[in-house]
Amino acid sequence: MTEQKATNVHWHDGDITREDRQRMMKQRGATLWFTGLSGSGKSTIAVALEARLFEMGHLSYRLDGDNIRFGINKNLGFSAEDRTENIRRIGEIAKLFVDSGVIALSSFISPYCADRDQVRALHDDAGMDFIEVFVDCALEEAEKRDPKGLYKKARAGEIKNFTGIDDPYEAPTAAEIHLHTDQMSLEQEVDLLIAYMQERGILAA
Amino acid sequence: MTEQKATNVHWHDGDITREDRQRMMKQRGATLWFTGLSGSGKSTIAVALEARLFEMGHLSYRLDGDNIRFGINKNLGFSAEDRTENIRRIGEIAKLFVDSGVIALSSFISPYCADRDQVRALHDDAGMDFIEVFVDCALEEAEKRDPKGLYKKARAGEIKNFTGIDDPYEAPTAAEIHLHTDQMSLEQEVDLLIAYMQERGILAA
Repeated sequence: MTEQKATNVHWHDGDITREDRQRMMKQRGATLWFTGLSGSGKSTIAVALEARLFEMGHLSYRLDGDNIRFGINKNLGFSAEDRTENIRRIGEIAKLFVDSGVIALSSFISPYCADRDQVRALHDDAGMDFIEVFVDCALEEAEKRDPKGLYKKARAGEIKNFTGIDDPYEAPTAAEIHLHTDQMSLEQEVDLLIAYMQERGILAA
Repeated sequence: MTEQKATNVHWHDGDITREDRQRMMKQRGATLWFTGLSGSGKSTIAVALEARLFEMGHLSYRLDGDNIRFGINKNLGFSAEDRTENIRRIGEIAKLFVDSGVIALSSFISPYCADRDQVRALHDDAGMDFIEVFVDCALEEAEKRDPKGLYKKARAGEIKNFTGIDDPYEAPTAAEIHLHTDQMSLEQEVDLLIAYMQERGILAA
């Protein structure tokens, strides 16, 4: 923290802007939108990227089921309409973080192209970076991992409308980053994401 | 930005936590919840506080009608139910910012005690600072200012359920900060808020 130099000095050029905050944070706010099947590794990658960014002195914040589904979106279920509203709200929250100068890391299955494209459009309209990261993993592999036992329940019919089983996953066709998680180590994936963010100017190179 | 020292160094103690982010940011995440009549000066004070915090090297972010009502809450109107949902969502978003290490400055009329108390409880349950700031201004004075011409429209019956005219404003009874805006300058108000945040340990003294 820089100590305040005088109590009677004020900012005279109007409201503090996104650019001001970004200058102070030495980074550009941006949304990295991880999409992929349950068990594909979205959260694992987001957690590892968050740690790397932290080591580099950057502030990022993860949006995931834990802090969204049990918080702001606890009044939403899994109907098609609610899934769309779920993603819309997450997109709007990510935008607020971008505006604040923070790097938002969103990891949700977000299976529908139209929903992801809506979030992209929200960012585009505001001149904000939206980076779609396709966490690509074969269904067979994700189902074999089944870290939360959800595929087993879905196969047994205990969970309905489960993505990959009885609800579609619409793979991105033009994601900025396509991670083949069966061909790369976690460290290589994080390296790639950092390099991309530097190239794009979100982080200083 | 601190330059990354090695590409193969990783954070091994698990996820980055709120405490980690706060240490990096040299501040504690917190919500300052400005409540008061339309025209009472909530946004003016929040803007001035944001500027002062920025000069001190602190990251805050304002939540207000511009970025909330036209964004995440654009599907909400002004019925009692929608007003409650509006405030609930803002409270949840403020919590996310607090968790990220940012100081959230929320300025909405938020006329109902029960709604504000719900947001306070959300913060209390998560061990987060919630600071209610009552921006106190007589209705006559707010109506005289009428910066957006809304009181005039409400008196003419063109706006229904307008707080202070035909919808109640429930004044806080136990706000952490009570600003009598007719007795203090903007600078004094900001001084008072900064001093309170330092005393409470949100900012270093």
